[in-house]
Amino acid sequence: MILEHALLPVRPGREAAFETAMAEALPIIRRQPGCLRAEVSRCVEQASTYLLLAEWDSVEAHEDGFRRSEDYQEWRALLHHFYDPFPTVLHFEPRELSLD
Amino acid sequence: MILEHALLPVRPGREAAFETAMAEALPIIRRQPGCLRAEVSRCVEQASTYLLLAEWDSVEAHEDGFRRSEDYQEWRALLHHFYDPFPTVLHFEPRELSLD
Repeated sequence: MILEHALLPVRPGREAAFETAMAEALPIIRRQPGCLRAEVSRCVEQASTYLLLAEWDSVEAHEDGFRRSEDYQEWRALLHHFYDPFPTVLHFEPRELSLD
Repeated sequence: MILEHALLPVRPGREAAFETAMAEALPIIRRQPGCLRAEVSRCVEQASTYLLLAEWDSVEAHEDGFRRSEDYQEWRALLHHFYDPFPTVLHFEPRELSLD
């Protein structure tokens, strides 16, 4: 499993419109092959910052699958105009850390 | 539920030692009152960057509870010397976004 991570800086004053657009966009990402889960949360300390976390089977499922799909064009049209600056997307690999 | 979020920039070359220390530190945070879950993952694109995500009952459980506890002194001694720069910790509130 790979975790897609993006801190989303939404233009101040556009938060409600962004949430409406994201409500439309989340089913698009969730239905992608290899997408296990996608959730959005809102920052307590910086109310215009949101966090997108999506679990994928692999980085390829996200980058080669979703990003090259027609669905991605819809995702992009719904969301990208809300961001300033444009977010950096990173991937994280869970670490099973134990003392054994 | 509140999500504690921190991107952890570990000094390059110290990743293995950090992971050993984090294996010792995770049980400390997980046993705090109000801590529901704590996970660490490692960035694919920037191998010295880790992501800490911890679920808490409330911001207060984290900030007034854990951060003022003796356990926090142990957490700090184990981990803080690995970071450069020191991480920014933020809290996020999950949004149930739907079109209904």
